[in-house]
Amino acid sequence: MADRPARTEIGVTTGPLPASTKVHVKGTLYPDLRVPLREIALTGDEPPFRVYDTSGPYTDPQALIDIHAGLPRLRDPWIDARGDTERYDGRQVRPEDNGLARGARREVQPFPSPNLRPRRAKAGAVTQMAYARRGIITPEMEFVAIRENLGREAALERARDGESFGAEIPDDVTPEFVRDEVARGRAIIPANINHPELEPMAIGRNFLVKINANIGNSAVASSIAEEVDKMVWAVRWGADTVMDLSTGKNIHDTREWILRNSPVPIGTVPIYQALEKVGGVAEDLTWDIFRDTLIEQAEQGVDYFTIHAGVRLPYIHLTANRVTGIVSRGGSIMAKWCLAHHRESFLYTRFREICEIMRAYDVSFSLGDGLRPGSIADANDRAQFAELETLGELTRVAWEMDCQVMIEGPGHVPMHKIKVNMEKQLEVCGEAPFYTLGPLTTDIAPGYDHITSGIGAAMIGWFGTAMLCYVTPKEHLGLPDRDDVKVGVITYKLAAHAADLAKGHPAAQLRDDALSKARFEFRWRDQFNLSLDPATAEAYHDQTLPAEGAKTAHFCSMCGPKFCSMKITQDVRDHAARLNADDMLAMEGMAEKSAEFRAKGSEIYLPAEE
Amino acid sequence: MADRPARTEIGVTTGPLPASTKVHVKGTLYPDLRVPLREIALTGDEPPFRVYDTSGPYTDPQALIDIHAGLPRLRDPWIDARGDTERYDGRQVRPEDNGLARGARREVQPFPSPNLRPRRAKAGAVTQMAYARRGIITPEMEFVAIRENLGREAALERARDGESFGAEIPDDVTPEFVRDEVARGRAIIPANINHPELEPMAIGRNFLVKINANIGNSAVASSIAEEVDKMVWAVRWGADTVMDLSTGKNIHDTREWILRNSPVPIGTVPIYQALEKVGGVAEDLTWDIFRDTLIEQAEQGVDYFTIHAGVRLPYIHLTANRVTGIVSRGGSIMAKWCLAHHRESFLYTRFREICEIMRAYDVSFSLGDGLRPGSIADANDRAQFAELETLGELTRVAWEMDCQVMIEGPGHVPMHKIKVNMEKQLEVCGEAPFYTLGPLTTDIAPGYDHITSGIGAAMIGWFGTAMLCYVTPKEHLGLPDRDDVKVGVITYKLAAHAADLAKGHPAAQLRDDALSKARFEFRWRDQFNLSLDPATAEAYHDQTLPAEGAKTAHFCSMCGPKFCSMKITQDVRDHAARLNADDMLAMEGMAEKSAEFRAKGSEIYLPAEE
Repeated sequence: MADRPARTEIGVTTGPLPASTKVHVKGTLYPDLRVPLREIALTGDEPPFRVYDTSGPYTDPQALIDIHAGLPRLRDPWIDARGDTERYDGRQVRPEDNGLARGARREVQPFPSPNLRPRRAKAGAVTQMAYARRGIITPEMEFVAIRENLGREAALERARDGESFGAEIPDDVTPEFVRDEVARGRAIIPANINHPELEPMAIGRNFLVKINANIGNSAVASSIAEEVDKMVWAVRWGADTVMDLSTGKNIHDTREWILRNSPVPIGTVPIYQALEKVGGVAEDLTWDIFRDTLIEQAEQGVDYFTIHAGVRLPYIHLTANRVTGIVSRGGSIMAKWCLAHHRESFLYTRFREICEIMRAYDVSFSLGDGLRPGSIADANDRAQFAELETLGELTRVAWEMDCQVMIEGPGHVPMHKIKVNMEKQLEVCGEAPFYTLGPLTTDIAPGYDHITSGIGAAMIGWFGTAMLCYVTPKEHLGLPDRDDVKVGVITYKLAAHAADLAKGHPAAQLRDDALSKARFEFRWRDQFNLSLDPATAEAYHDQTLPAEGAKTAHFCSMCGPKFCSMKITQDVRDHAARLNADDMLAMEGMAEKSAEFRAKGSEIYLPAEE
Repeated sequence: MADRPARTEIGVTTGPLPASTKVHVKGTLYPDLRVPLREIALTGDEPPFRVYDTSGPYTDPQALIDIHAGLPRLRDPWIDARGDTERYDGRQVRPEDNGLARGARREVQPFPSPNLRPRRAKAGAVTQMAYARRGIITPEMEFVAIRENLGREAALERARDGESFGAEIPDDVTPEFVRDEVARGRAIIPANINHPELEPMAIGRNFLVKINANIGNSAVASSIAEEVDKMVWAVRWGADTVMDLSTGKNIHDTREWILRNSPVPIGTVPIYQALEKVGGVAEDLTWDIFRDTLIEQAEQGVDYFTIHAGVRLPYIHLTANRVTGIVSRGGSIMAKWCLAHHRESFLYTRFREICEIMRAYDVSFSLGDGLRPGSIADANDRAQFAELETLGELTRVAWEMDCQVMIEGPGHVPMHKIKVNMEKQLEVCGEAPFYTLGPLTTDIAPGYDHITSGIGAAMIGWFGTAMLCYVTPKEHLGLPDRDDVKVGVITYKLAAHAADLAKGHPAAQLRDDALSKARFEFRWRDQFNLSLDPATAEAYHDQTLPAEGAKTAHFCSMCGPKFCSMKITQDVRDHAARLNADDMLAMEGMAEKSAEFRAKGSEIYLPAEE
């Protein structure tokens, strides 16, 4: 890709996107809120256009970025004000947390000012759900409302249009609406009390469709800045949350650096780290080691945990005849444990204990689909749906304990089997947000699985999935590099936006209209700047017509100056504008006359002469 | 892209795809038929896998490729045997056919042995539809049946699965089935009698979903071989038909080179050349010039013509308030003509005369959607559907005259408005094949419109569209290069395949299963070779694990050797295989016990101890 802003001396990608300015909107209930939006300047008399902004302070030239200090801890005063948490001496970092032998020295420079005194609940739940159920609108909720409400005022005049399959997307997102959605479990605001740097966002069927980008540490990472930059790069292009799927060495310290510098919620799969702690031998996992890992990561500030508690012993044999068995890493680890011990999964039997931890830090559940299909052949089978039913059961338990929950979904599913996944999830999981990986709609295109899955993602997003986990072109083949991450994020942004349009989000089409209008009026720069990836759009244009003048020309390279359909259309429009009412009537008459001819049997209107 | 086979000294890309051999299947009714298929060799005990092959002799090492001689004229004896055509002295090539001034010399080397004595019907129709309606199964029909039937025998044992929305996809494609579909207008076999080099293929809702790739000459083409190679490159990756959308100079000669070397049907938009002949001034177009252009191209062997006969005078003002007006080039040319003369389009008034020409050469209609929406805002508006209704009217006229017809469709359409396009087209056009451009499901991602449109293409293909016109990453921005063409073709192949899967094509899933099985068994080479783009898949794999040994390793770079979900699953499967019936029953019991607990109110199964 052409757009590759240099990483600065501070090691991560900074600077605004083209023609863009960071603006901040204040709260009403909480006037100190500064909700970031990106404002794109347009040319001519066009007003600037505002878009949702996931990129954090990195795109704000006013912000001082220092990854050694971390981002501002904007939520600290909000959490303090609630008065329901306490600081305590946190768990000591041990060599095995970083995959090192006992007594070994840390290989990665630790974050300079780690939070040695993390917060936890004084008692019970300090979750956004707990507050919502008590009728409290938190600053997090108002923050979300302001972000989500973007553009709706401008859209009020247009007729709503779309098919939402039962979603209830409001004309106007109020803080109270956010509270109500969180209270009833239809949305979550993943926001660990130990991740105060986070800019709150919501995941739910009645909000904008979100996307997640996965990152993971490299065995040969050259610097911690490079690891942090993977996250910064993903949010620059629009990732709403980031999952850190690191395995192997140094993962505790890497995670600390990422969390302290992340403006978006960070998710993890704690069983990966737990497995590292037992030398990679699944049978050796214990509840104590897993529990300790949950607390380790909760103290660091991880916002949601994937927990594969639905992989139950009685379901495992259901996968034996699959074409691709169990393809989820977490799922296969737990399956191996269950079979080795011939016992029910400790994630299932200890689920209430897990909930106790989650609610003490407000870590959201992402109930993992460990038995998701890994191929078209295995889609929607008994194993998959048995697990989904268990996830529904666990959702109700978590809700009893005021824990926030979303549900992970497949995977590989042909188009005609996608909708029933959504319907079944809504039914058995009580409308808890669905969070799907794609799904991939065919298996035959490795190297293009961002596209095979983008198709499924757009569709399931339309049907009601709240967050789409991206897939990069390297899926099934290798580790994504920087370009792959960007392509994956942009592909999923466009899929999520296509879903928002189809669901009838009242303001989604404003951006399509602004861009199409720019296109039609040959405002090339505006077209680029309104796009999801301005630099790539401009680079593609310039490959054919590099001259700066071509960016203001009233034609493009496809047709050239003499033969431009858009130019001809402008002439048509000018001509039509000169038509008088009689002309219009005459033309209507012609169309009707033709209808008469049709009625008489497909006779074509034939003039006497040419 | 990594796979860029060198163009050979003969100037075009040749050679087989990895592990692939060209095989030929004989006919039964016509034993001389040699229907090409591609056979992919697999490793171990896996039988070879056969796939549909659009690539022509270029991938056959046995074939002698000489673009100066053109491809073998395999259909000549079939056409001769019908005895209903005559050869005549064809139209003389004039300078203006190549966009040159009167008396100017040709700039491009003419094809060495042009067909100066083209064929035409002795009388009436020599179309596949005419034969089909008389109950005749042509060699073209049997050829199509053999291609389309691929894999169905192997699939007979599997249960059919899919949602076809009323399509009637047979378990077994017989030549008689093909004849019947062509007779009733539900499928076409574009096959001009002057394009005997073509390997027949069918476009229809009850056949495999097809894709078209657009190519166009470059103003600065360095050689004729480069122009021919654009077509060869597109069919190598799976284009079922190719449209030559050239404008400007040398288009007659370029087209001749392409046709003589093309194994797939070639489509054009004759109004583009006609406009060149009048110096680009739409108002100066006349029926005579257009008619002359149709005959010129029909004699050359063009297999289908886009004719924008539905852009009627009374519809033009319906576009005046659109965000993006008229975006079809052909549509805008005709709109300008109509308004300038304030007369009905000659394409509409002369439609029966056009049909006379089409049926004399068996040129199929691709009735153009000149008023298709160019933005989400304009989707499904009155202008678009008024034109579609006229296309239905014209379909009936063409069918009266035994002409083959397909209908072009949009464009830019949000997901929730796609299905009605298909339904309306089926209804008003009597199930004539639909041929859509995308549609793009959002406007906000220029640079990624192969993906925004691939989403819409997969969906509308599922709903019943017979052929999908590809969109490349350069759409709206510039002219596609070789890499863009490949990405466009692969994207549309995967979309078409996703549609075949969802429609319930009985054999489509065989390839998904073969590839997924290879993936699960760590047969990396087989996984690459079964994919749509083996070289890219391999290159992506090798970016992380380049060693040859890694291609046979039982792990991949995502998880590494110790931590591989697929490896763990294999252990699970082995373990499950050792379970006895008692174990199974015990596990079923556990699941039921859990269901009981659920019934009692979400109690979790808790063992006495860990």
